[in-house]
Amino acid sequence: MSKIIAINAGSSSLKFTLYQMPGEVALSTGLIERIGLNDSIFTIKYGEGQKYNVVEDIENHEIAVEKLMVQLKELGIITDFNEITGVGHRVVAGGEDFKESTLINDDVLAKIEELGDLAPLHNPANATGIRAFKKLLPEITSVAVFDTAFHTTMPKENYLYSIPMEYYEDFAARKYGAHGTSHQYVAERAADMLGKPLEDLKIITCHLGNGGSITAVDGGKSVDTSMGFTPLAGVTMGTRSGDIDVSLLPYLMDKLEITDIKEMVNILNKKSGLLGLSGVSSDMRDVETAAEEGNERAQTALDIFYNRVQKYIGQYIAVMNGVDAIVFTAGIGENSASTRQIIIDGLTWFGCEIDAEKNNVRGEERIISTEDSKVKVVLVPTDEELVILRDVLRLGNLA
Amino acid sequence: MSKIIAINAGSSSLKFTLYQMPGEVALSTGLIERIGLNDSIFTIKYGEGQKYNVVEDIENHEIAVEKLMVQLKELGIITDFNEITGVGHRVVAGGEDFKESTLINDDVLAKIEELGDLAPLHNPANATGIRAFKKLLPEITSVAVFDTAFHTTMPKENYLYSIPMEYYEDFAARKYGAHGTSHQYVAERAADMLGKPLEDLKIITCHLGNGGSITAVDGGKSVDTSMGFTPLAGVTMGTRSGDIDVSLLPYLMDKLEITDIKEMVNILNKKSGLLGLSGVSSDMRDVETAAEEGNERAQTALDIFYNRVQKYIGQYIAVMNGVDAIVFTAGIGENSASTRQIIIDGLTWFGCEIDAEKNNVRGEERIISTEDSKVKVVLVPTDEELVILRDVLRLGNLA
Repeated sequence: MSKIIAINAGSSSLKFTLYQMPGEVALSTGLIERIGLNDSIFTIKYGEGQKYNVVEDIENHEIAVEKLMVQLKELGIITDFNEITGVGHRVVAGGEDFKESTLINDDVLAKIEELGDLAPLHNPANATGIRAFKKLLPEITSVAVFDTAFHTTMPKENYLYSIPMEYYEDFAARKYGAHGTSHQYVAERAADMLGKPLEDLKIITCHLGNGGSITAVDGGKSVDTSMGFTPLAGVTMGTRSGDIDVSLLPYLMDKLEITDIKEMVNILNKKSGLLGLSGVSSDMRDVETAAEEGNERAQTALDIFYNRVQKYIGQYIAVMNGVDAIVFTAGIGENSASTRQIIIDGLTWFGCEIDAEKNNVRGEERIISTEDSKVKVVLVPTDEELVILRDVLRLGNLA
Repeated sequence: MSKIIAINAGSSSLKFTLYQMPGEVALSTGLIERIGLNDSIFTIKYGEGQKYNVVEDIENHEIAVEKLMVQLKELGIITDFNEITGVGHRVVAGGEDFKESTLINDDVLAKIEELGDLAPLHNPANATGIRAFKKLLPEITSVAVFDTAFHTTMPKENYLYSIPMEYYEDFAARKYGAHGTSHQYVAERAADMLGKPLEDLKIITCHLGNGGSITAVDGGKSVDTSMGFTPLAGVTMGTRSGDIDVSLLPYLMDKLEITDIKEMVNILNKKSGLLGLSGVSSDMRDVETAAEEGNERAQTALDIFYNRVQKYIGQYIAVMNGVDAIVFTAGIGENSASTRQIIIDGLTWFGCEIDAEKNNVRGEERIISTEDSKVKVVLVPTDEELVILRDVLRLGNLA
């Protein structure tokens, strides 16, 4: 009876899922927010809907991890720290070096920190989480699971930008993508559900959450993805613009009297997307409600969101020269039946047809296309923590 | 027997085609380069392959127009200035105001200058050309033909970016596209060649020259196009990057120690695309030759070029939920049979099949898909000057 913990550390947060083996049973999940700020919020869910919730100052990630472990013991979720035999850490940027999940040693940790150049908000936080666990539980198996690893199979013509080649050679300026763990997981699940070998399938996975990305998965391998050098590129997101003409930057900076490009890019990351278009919210549910109530800008935001997803689907059919299945996952993909319906209704020429009745569902594995639909449409709730768990078990030989 | 002249004025150049009516006979074409610099180059082609060519200092556009008219007379191409009854000017940016070609009066000219904000390199030059002709030939019909007009039929979800809506409302930050005259012309020709009403067709027009853009033409109307706020966006071009992740800008500026964003955008306009990728040339023919000789970077540049065009074709099939014909035009589109072949060979799933024998042709109107190809592939040499001529005739009632 061993336990494995999956960790997602942000710059001021720490999310976890604690699993019991065998059986992949999620015993507990939780979140510590506002680490390093005042009034940190510490939440643990466990048992049959039980919840522990306190507000207290938590100075740094090390203290957060310590408090977490102590509290798990206090609540009787674990009886001893030693029960936890493995920890898996989500790491955002793995660059070109990390093509798969990896046991963490000092070299790996150093490399993760070096790659902070590519994900300045995320990798340093991920590394902080890794160090905090190493300090408290130095002996356990520690694994890094990279958001970008699944996409390292992309061919050159899809990961290179049409910029001077020296920028790739000297500065590693290329497409890396994100959400790799999710795309991989849902593609595998979809193949299972369709009863066909993943190797024989061309799948387009639509991870539509607050951040969104679309991936072309050919024979189980990512061949292209909509996020780019960073997660700013691609489809319209909650607060991110996705693809825009770069020329807008000097123009808008001039109009807005912004002199620092980082400030402008920050607007594109934090105040754009559904939020900037609708003026209502970055949350799809709020935008849908506003549109239903007759808010025109909200309706426009929705129309643009659907449109960008449809365009990437069309684009990736071209990239693979075909498609067998389109998969929806993540917050919006799992919960908004109307989003799935509208997107697929605009793609009937490709041989996609949604079954409105089957589509009337939330967060449940299901084939939602009609029997006759040439291209299958599949709903798969994503589970990135489960992938982390399995990678820890596999790499640590803990099964 | 009247004559019409079509003008394309750049910041330091003036291109013209002189037509004789009736019959749309192109009597003469020519180019004045390096206006305002030393050693301007003045070329006129006429008659049966005759050519006039001198190098002399030409201070400004007004003098250029005057020299042009005098020389046309001297060479016996015209006998009197009054024979020219109409002039049509290509104007790059028409913004949201100019939805079609327009007779030029003082208000129109002022508006064209105002729109210089959207095309700072082009509109001021276009206006200079207009003023120069107005001064020399004040009485003739003068028409502005806008590169953007054809795209003003795009629906909101395609012309808006996912940025704060205020940037559109206050600063007109949106997609305008370019090459409109060309896309319109080749779509119309393709419909004619296919013997079907344009209104019933979904056509994707690929204008692939040194600059390149792809347009979705649904029922004769542009519904989406790959160029954006400016001609920097879209597919890989001779020296332009096309679409990239905006986040690359702060990253590269930091690495390259560039502080002025305009300098960075200039690199994306002038040193990227085929040139930046291949390190060989911005000219497709040179890149093709280098690739044949085993230059790997040149081959990569080609692969990326094909890939981007294919992606836009897939994307626009999604936008229109179907496609009847794909049209190739402009320098590369008309002359590179291998480009057409490779692009279409990657899209067989959509029901496109190229006929290698029919495709073995340059710059000639021809259907180049197989008899069985569900989606027709059509080669149409573009003729933007002819559209300008016809708009002058129509708006000036000069037919």
